[in-house]
Amino acid sequence: MTIKVGVNGYGVIGKRVADAVRAMPDMDLLGVADVATDWRVRTAAGLGFGVFAATPEADTAMREVGVPVSGTLTDLLDQVDVVVDTTPKRVAAGNLEAYRAAGVKAVFQGGESHATTGHSFVAQANYETAVGRDTTRVVSCNTTSIVRVLGALQQAGLLARARGVLIRRATDPGESHHGGIMNTVVPEASIPSHQGPDARTVLPDLDVVTMAAKAAHTQSHNHFWTLQLTRPASREEVLDALRAAPRIAFIRMSDGLTALNTTVELMRDLGRPRGDMWEVAVWEDVLSVAGDEAYLTYQVYNEAIVVPETIDAIRALTGTVTDGAASIATTDEILGVRREFLPERVEAMPA
Amino acid sequence: MTIKVGVNGYGVIGKRVADAVRAMPDMDLLGVADVATDWRVRTAAGLGFGVFAATPEADTAMREVGVPVSGTLTDLLDQVDVVVDTTPKRVAAGNLEAYRAAGVKAVFQGGESHATTGHSFVAQANYETAVGRDTTRVVSCNTTSIVRVLGALQQAGLLARARGVLIRRATDPGESHHGGIMNTVVPEASIPSHQGPDARTVLPDLDVVTMAAKAAHTQSHNHFWTLQLTRPASREEVLDALRAAPRIAFIRMSDGLTALNTTVELMRDLGRPRGDMWEVAVWEDVLSVAGDEAYLTYQVYNEAIVVPETIDAIRALTGTVTDGAASIATTDEILGVRREFLPERVEAMPA
Amino acid sequence: MTIKVGVNGYGVIGKRVADAVRAMPDMDLLGVADVATDWRVRTAAGLGFGVFAATPEADTAMREVGVPVSGTLTDLLDQVDVVVDTTPKRVAAGNLEAYRAAGVKAVFQGGESHATTGHSFVAQANYETAVGRDTTRVVSCNTTSIVRVLGALQQAGLLARARGVLIRRATDPGESHHGGIMNTVVPEASIPSHQGPDARTVLPDLDVVTMAAKAAHTQSHNHFWTLQLTRPASREEVLDALRAAPRIAFIRMSDGLTALNTTVELMRDLGRPRGDMWEVAVWEDVLSVAGDEAYLTYQVYNEAIVVPETIDAIRALTGTVTDGAASIATTDEILGVRREFLPERVEAMPA
Amino acid sequence: MTIKVGVNGYGVIGKRVADAVRAMPDMDLLGVADVATDWRVRTAAGLGFGVFAATPEADTAMREVGVPVSGTLTDLLDQVDVVVDTTPKRVAAGNLEAYRAAGVKAVFQGGESHATTGHSFVAQANYETAVGRDTTRVVSCNTTSIVRVLGALQQAGLLARARGVLIRRATDPGESHHGGIMNTVVPEASIPSHQGPDARTVLPDLDVVTMAAKAAHTQSHNHFWTLQLTRPASREEVLDALRAAPRIAFIRMSDGLTALNTTVELMRDLGRPRGDMWEVAVWEDVLSVAGDEAYLTYQVYNEAIVVPETIDAIRALTGTVTDGAASIATTDEILGVRREFLPERVEAMPA
Repeated sequence: MTIKVGVNGYGVIGKRVADAVRAMPDMDLLGVADVATDWRVRTAAGLGFGVFAATPEADTAMREVGVPVSGTLTDLLDQVDVVVDTTPKRVAAGNLEAYRAAGVKAVFQGGESHATTGHSFVAQANYETAVGRDTTRVVSCNTTSIVRVLGALQQAGLLARARGVLIRRATDPGESHHGGIMNTVVPEASIPSHQGPDARTVLPDLDVVTMAAKAAHTQSHNHFWTLQLTRPASREEVLDALRAAPRIAFIRMSDGLTALNTTVELMRDLGRPRGDMWEVAVWEDVLSVAGDEAYLTYQVYNEAIVVPETIDAIRALTGTVTDGAASIATTDEILGVRREFLPERVEAMPA
Repeated sequence: MTIKVGVNGYGVIGKRVADAVRAMPDMDLLGVADVATDWRVRTAAGLGFGVFAATPEADTAMREVGVPVSGTLTDLLDQVDVVVDTTPKRVAAGNLEAYRAAGVKAVFQGGESHATTGHSFVAQANYETAVGRDTTRVVSCNTTSIVRVLGALQQAGLLARARGVLIRRATDPGESHHGGIMNTVVPEASIPSHQGPDARTVLPDLDVVTMAAKAAHTQSHNHFWTLQLTRPASREEVLDALRAAPRIAFIRMSDGLTALNTTVELMRDLGRPRGDMWEVAVWEDVLSVAGDEAYLTYQVYNEAIVVPETIDAIRALTGTVTDGAASIATTDEILGVRREFLPERVEAMPA
Repeated sequence: MTIKVGVNGYGVIGKRVADAVRAMPDMDLLGVADVATDWRVRTAAGLGFGVFAATPEADTAMREVGVPVSGTLTDLLDQVDVVVDTTPKRVAAGNLEAYRAAGVKAVFQGGESHATTGHSFVAQANYETAVGRDTTRVVSCNTTSIVRVLGALQQAGLLARARGVLIRRATDPGESHHGGIMNTVVPEASIPSHQGPDARTVLPDLDVVTMAAKAAHTQSHNHFWTLQLTRPASREEVLDALRAAPRIAFIRMSDGLTALNTTVELMRDLGRPRGDMWEVAVWEDVLSVAGDEAYLTYQVYNEAIVVPETIDAIRALTGTVTDGAASIATTDEILGVRREFLPERVEAMPA
Repeated sequence: MTIKVGVNGYGVIGKRVADAVRAMPDMDLLGVADVATDWRVRTAAGLGFGVFAATPEADTAMREVGVPVSGTLTDLLDQVDVVVDTTPKRVAAGNLEAYRAAGVKAVFQGGESHATTGHSFVAQANYETAVGRDTTRVVSCNTTSIVRVLGALQQAGLLARARGVLIRRATDPGESHHGGIMNTVVPEASIPSHQGPDARTVLPDLDVVTMAAKAAHTQSHNHFWTLQLTRPASREEVLDALRAAPRIAFIRMSDGLTALNTTVELMRDLGRPRGDMWEVAVWEDVLSVAGDEAYLTYQVYNEAIVVPETIDAIRALTGTVTDGAASIATTDEILGVRREFLPERVEAMPA
C-alpha cells in the first residue's frame, strides 16, 4: 500500500516534509495547502506540487494573483490517508476537527500541546504506541533532540538526572521581518523552560530541567548538558550509549568543526537538500565524564531534525509498518541519515 | 575531446568549481589540491574527489592525519589540461610559474591582479579574446556582476555613466573565526573602491565609479546604481537591455522577495546545490527610470556567481569551444541557470 | 523668559530631548508623558522627571503598578509653553488637536508628514521661518543629515545634483523584540526612497535622489553620495563649504576611525550622555573630488542627531530667540557639539 | 595619603580604570601608557590624561604622529605607587619585572594566570589577604561574577555544587576587525571551561564546573546556573544570601528588562559613564528553587564589572585601607553602584 499524504502549511517544516514524503517509496504526496500567495507557494507550484488553498479566502486570493490552484484543503483531505499539519502555532489545533470530519489521520508538530492529540512522538522512543492511532504530535526540534540523546542514556541505564541550557536560534534564516533580535541574548522569562517538561510527554520518567535563551543567530540550537549518571561511568560507556541510538551523529572540534555555522557549511558541502541536518550532532571530543557526572554539547538543526520523525509518524498512524526500527531504517536510508559525516581516516600512507 | 581539469584550492570557490566541472559533459575533474587537513579536505575525499597535497608540507601533514592523498600538486598538474587556481589572494600569483613549467593552462580568480595574466574574463563580454590563451583571470564576484549588468546596458547603447554603491557581505557563512564584523558597517577607506576600475579591465570604455562598505551579514552583496543614460529612455527599454544579456534574473518585491536572505531561501527551496545563485538577481519592480537617469538594485551571490564564468574560461583557454555564446549556453543548461525563478502566473482561474 | 517645556513620548528621542531641555539655561522641563508602565517610565521617575499619563488608560495602568504619576497629559499641557511630541508615528498627528485646544505650541518629529504642521525644520536652513509659528516638524535623522551636508554645499554654490545611497540601521540598540533583521540587507521597496523628497520640504531647490536599505546593525546610518558640482572644484573647496556649516564634524580613517562602531566607541570615551553624537560625522580623508564630481560618506547617529534641532525649534516657536545662529550657538555650547573630536596634533616632539 | 596610580594599557578596561581612579578621593592618576598612536590614545590626551609611551618604539611612533607624549613607561613608573596593568594577555606578564625593578606595586587583570602574581582578587571574598602585597590579579569578568554570586551563597552556607553555562559576548562593541563572529555560536572546545577552575583561585572550596560558548553579540555575558544546595531552601533564603553580598543588583523580566540589550539601554538612561554596569545583574523573578536545587540567570557587563575590584585592589596593595568592606563602600559610593536600578513603586495612587 502506498500512503497518500497531504501537507497543510508550506513553511519551514512543511516544505521539508513535502520533499521527504515525495522521496519515500511507500508514500505519495498529493499536494500542499497554504494561505500564502507569494513566492513561497508559487515555488511549490514550480516544483510540481499540487497547491491547495487552506481557506476559502486563500482560494480567492491565490486565484486572483495567478497561483495555479488544485483545490481547497477539503479537496486535498478527500484524497489523502494522512495529513501532516505544519501550520503556525495558533492555527494547527483548530484544524483537528476538519481532519476528523474528513476521516483523515493527522500528524501535528511540536508547536501544539500534548493535549491536542494525547500522544507525543519520537520514533526511537515510542513508535509502537502510535501505531494505528488517529493523531500524534511530533515534538519540537529541541524536545526531539532531548529525547534522542537523554533517551539513549536512559535506555542504557546511565541517566539519573539531566540539567540543560539551550541556546536557541532567534528566527529562521529566510525570515527577515519577524522575530529577529540584534546584538543581544534574550533569556526565557521563567525557569524551567518548557522543553524539559515537554520531553516527559514522551519519556515520563526523565528527571530533566531546562533553561533557555535566544541568541543572535538564525541557524540551529546549541544545547549544553550536565548529566548526573546512575553510577560512575567511563567516557566510552557514555559514547556507546549514544552510538546505540539512531539519528545521533558525532562531530569533532579536532576536525575543525568548531561552531554551529561550520557544521551548517559541512551539510552544504555534503550536497544535502537545503543544507539540512536531520541528526543531532554531538561533539564527541568535547563530551567529558568526571566520576558520575557527564557534560556534553550538541547542535540541533531546527529546520530539519523533525522531518524523519514526521515520516515515521505517518507510517505509524497508518499502521503500514508496525516496527519502529524498520520505519526508522527506511526513512534514514532514503534521506541519507549518517552516524559520521567524514570518511574514516586511512592508515598513515607512505608519501 | 574531454578537458582534463584540476582545481587548486578547495575553498568557497574551489569546491563549487569542482562540482561544476564534474557536472560538465565535456570535462573531467582529475582532482583537487589543498593544504588543509581538516574536515574540508576530508569531505572532498568523502565525495570521491582525488585529493592532492598542494605543498610538500601539506603532503606530510595530510598523510599524518589519515587523509587519503592521491599525490602532490605536481602529480595533478601532470595529468590535466587546465588548472583552476582558487587559492587565497597572496598564494595564487606565486603558482603561475609552476603551471607554466608543467605546460598547463590556468584560470585565476578575481583576487589576483589583471597583470598576473594580462587578461580578465567575463564570458558574455570577451570570451573570444581568451580563446587559446595560456591564462586568464575570472574577475571577482562584484566585478562580474558589474560587467554583466552595465555591459548589457552599454551593449544596448544606453549607458553613459554609472555610479554605484556596493554593500558587501563581511565574511563567508561557514567561516567563524576570520573577518567577522558585528553590529557595524565598515566603509572602504577610499573612493573610488577598486571594483569600478576593475570592471574596466574587461570593459575599458565604462565610465564607472564605485563606493563600497561591508555590512554585518554573511551572504551576498547588494549593489545600488545611479545610471546616466545616453538619452531619455523608457523603463521597458532598460529592462529589455538586461533581458538580452545572459545570467541576469529578475526578482520582485511584490512576490515577497524583499531581502537578501529571502532570495537565499528561495535558492534553497529550488533545490540548488548549497543554495547557490549564479545569476545576478535584479529587482525588476524597484528599477526606476526618470528621464535620462535609471536607478536599480541587485543582489550578487558572491559564493557562486563566478562559477559559470570559470567553466567558460576553461573552455576558452583550451579552445574546444570558440563561440562564447555556445559555451555559455552549455554551462547554463547544465547548471540550471534561469531568467525567472518563479513559474509564470496562470490566467485567473475560476474557483 | 524661561520656556516651559513638556515632552510627550519618553522613547529613544523623547528621553534625549528631555535631558537636553533640562540642560538648557533658558528652558524648564515640566514633565514627560508616556503610556508605558515598565522600566522606561520608572527610570524617568527615578531621574526626577515628572511623569504624566498620556492617556486615561495609561493613568490607570501606571497607578496600578505603582508609578508615581504627576497627572495626565492634559495637566502637563496646562503648564507648558511648548510640547515636544516624540510619540510613535501613528500617534503623533492625532495629538495635534489636543495641543491646539490647550493653546500649546508643538514640535513634531520626522515620522510625521510635512502636511501635519505645514513647516519642516532644520535649524541651519530655515530657523527664521519657524519663529513665532504654532507648530513645526523637525525632520528625520536621515533628512536632517542630508539638509546639513547638501545644504552646506548648496549654500556655497557648489551643488548641482546629489544622488545618495543610505545604509540604515535596522532597529534601536535597546530594542530586542521589534524590527530586528538578521544576517541580511533589506532594500527599500521603491526608488527614490522618501528621504530625498523629504529634504525638499526644507530645501525646495535640491536636486536629490536617494536609495536606501536596512543593514544588520543597530547604531547609526551610513550615507554615500555622488555629487554633481556646479563646476570643477578642489577638494579643499568642498571641505571648506562643509566647515562653514554647523553640526558637521570631521573624522578620519587614518586615525583608526574606520567603522560606525568605532565612532560610537569614541563618543562613549568622550563621556557623552548615552554615547550620543549630535554631529554628522563626515570622513574627511575619504571625501574625494574628480573634476565636477564629489564623492563622500558620512555617519548619522540616528538616536541623537535631531536633539539639537529640536531644542532650536522650541526656541523658534516661542520667538524668544529670533536669530537662528544665536540659538544654534547656545544649544551647541551647552550640549558640547564639536567640529573635531580629537585634539590637534602637537609639533613633532623631541624624545 | 593619596595613592599615586598609573595605568598601563588604555584599552577597554584601562580607560575605565583610569576614569575610576580619577574619581576616587584617595587616588591620583598620574598617567596612562600605551603603544597605540591612533584615536584611542589621542582621545586620552584630549581628556587631559598624561600619555606615556609603553615602549621605546611607541615613544618614537607617538611623537612622529603628533601625540603629546609625557614620557615613557619608565618615567610613569618613577612617579607612581601602584600600576594597573591592563595590557593584552601576552604582554602583561612580561611587564612584571619592570614593575619590580621600579619598586612599584602592580594590579594585573584576569587574562594573566594566577601564577603570575600568586594571588587572585575579588574584593568581597579576599580583600584582606591582598593587603600589603606587591601584586595581585583581579580575576576576569566571568570569574568575578562567579565569585560574587556563588561566594554569596557559599557564605550563607547554602551552596553544595554549582554547574554553569556561560554565553559569552564574542568581541567588544568598539572593535570591528578582530574577533567578530557572525550568525553562529562557538562552543568552547573543552569542558570544563577555564572559568570554573579559575574561581577556585579565590574560593578554593567551590565545587564548580562551567561550560561556555561565544554567541553573536558584543555586549555582556549571560550565565545560567544549576545549584545543588546544601539543604532544601526557600526562594527567599537564596535571595537573601544574594542581598547580603555587595555588587549584586536585581533586575526583573516583569519590568520589561527582558534581554541583555535592554539592561544596557537602562544603564545608558541612568547616565552612567559609557553605559557601564559594575554590578552583576541577577534576574530576580527568574530565579527559581525546587527542593534543594536552585536555578538562576544573570548578566555580566564584561567591560566594567572588574573596575570596582581593581580600585579596591589598589587600596589593598598599598595598605591604606585594611578593611575590605570599607574600601568597597567607598568605591561603590563614588561610582554609584546600586542594588536596584529602578525607584521603589509607590502605593497605588488615587487618580
